[in-house]
Amino acid sequence: MQRYFIPPNGWQEKQVMITGDDRHHIARVMRMNAGDSIICSSPEGMSAECEIVEITEHQVTAHVQRWLEESNDLPVSVTIAQGLPKGDKMELVLQKGTELGASAFIPFQAARSIVKWDGKKAEKKQSRYRKIVKEASEQSHRSSIPEVHPLMSVKQLLAASEAYDVKIFAYEDEARSSNYQSLSGILSNAEAGQKIIACIGPEGGYTIEEVNAFKQHGFQTVRLGPRILRTETAPLYLLAGISYHFEELGC
Amino acid sequence: MQRYFIPPNGWQEKQVMITGDDRHHIARVMRMNAGDSIICSSPEGMSAECEIVEITEHQVTAHVQRWLEESNDLPVSVTIAQGLPKGDKMELVLQKGTELGASAFIPFQAARSIVKWDGKKAEKKQSRYRKIVKEASEQSHRSSIPEVHPLMSVKQLLAASEAYDVKIFAYEDEARSSNYQSLSGILSNAEAGQKIIACIGPEGGYTIEEVNAFKQHGFQTVRLGPRILRTETAPLYLLAGISYHFEELGC
Repeated sequence: MQRYFIPPNGWQEKQVMITGDDRHHIARVMRMNAGDSIICSSPEGMSAECEIVEITEHQVTAHVQRWLEESNDLPVSVTIAQGLPKGDKMELVLQKGTELGASAFIPFQAARSIVKWDGKKAEKKQSRYRKIVKEASEQSHRSSIPEVHPLMSVKQLLAASEAYDVKIFAYEDEARSSNYQSLSGILSNAEAGQKIIACIGPEGGYTIEEVNAFKQHGFQTVRLGPRILRTETAPLYLLAGISYHFEELGC
Repeated sequence: MQRYFIPPNGWQEKQVMITGDDRHHIARVMRMNAGDSIICSSPEGMSAECEIVEITEHQVTAHVQRWLEESNDLPVSVTIAQGLPKGDKMELVLQKGTELGASAFIPFQAARSIVKWDGKKAEKKQSRYRKIVKEASEQSHRSSIPEVHPLMSVKQLLAASEAYDVKIFAYEDEARSSNYQSLSGILSNAEAGQKIIACIGPEGGYTIEEVNAFKQHGFQTVRLGPRILRTETAPLYLLAGISYHFEELGC
């Protein structure tokens, strides 16, 4: 059943009003009619099976049939802080990272990020990124939409990291030595409900200043398997590993 | 250090001759010179640190300095059989799947694959796919290049699956019920050196006939976490989970 995330003003008692892109998707892309069923999710993470009662040029109206008891969010909250990568790789991280259960994303301007965002571009990008995670949440039947934070500097990222219980960063050079903390060791010490932040460097990796700053702020280096992963593959490995650990192995 | 996979005819005692795209990459893209070092890997999975001795318009010649003792292949061999997906998603599976340690890929024509390949297209695609896995192997410092099999029918795939020790398929409908085999259960019974084949359906999933045929041929259904993954994300979750299980948890 198709899922739609409906903003707060779309809910009225047992009635759901759907407008904009979602209305278009229901009416034109899915070509649904009155009587068809969809799942509507609220910003608070509640979901209901709803029956479409009317489709007009401006709005789809649906009635709540039953509330669903479901939660397929990871038992730990994982924020992916991604050093701005080249091209459209950030979009891949957002889409796949959402499917794999990330709670939030922080794009950050690393010293070796080749891409630079100015004010207007940052705004446009963020709006596009929010659309990507919304659609990926709907498609993967998540009960919540990950947050996409505005672009941060490394300094802002370090300040924001104070709110997290577990802080890790993927640092290839150290991971190739034997001087790394294993991901499984870190996850074994993490508890359900805790907040994890994982920082992934851009294509060129971190500068030594960044590495030292992360360490000074309590970040631990992790290895993500013995092979070298591209910047956009690293968060996907990390999220799949966390899912496997908590949701499949039941550690 | 940059890595290049050199075909058998490029090796002559302690001398390596590099031609074609790799020569271009060394001379023009990396702008290397005589005296620079590279890693050359043989088709058998042996790698050597080599010093460039000469760069001409047709060939780079390098001398083996020392053989490397390395293996970063997964302890189990994993073949990803992917029902032909839409657009360029197969390329994503090949590139990221190689980074994540797959041993081989089998594209197959599933009943619900929207894309169809004819003879000429299949040949062109396979040549492009081999290039993608070669480049991804070099980039992720793998000691071997995954094999890309020619396009198979489901019938051919089932016949080929006889050569594998562990046979799994990701089947969303069953995975959402409680009637699934957990990936961790399957991996806990797998031993180093065994061959695993994992079949991933196309966007529309499998037909019931395909599901029955897989089951009759000894395939087990697996769940890949509780969220619904896109067809191109499923193999990445699976490979990361296998890597985490064997290489990070050390199960």
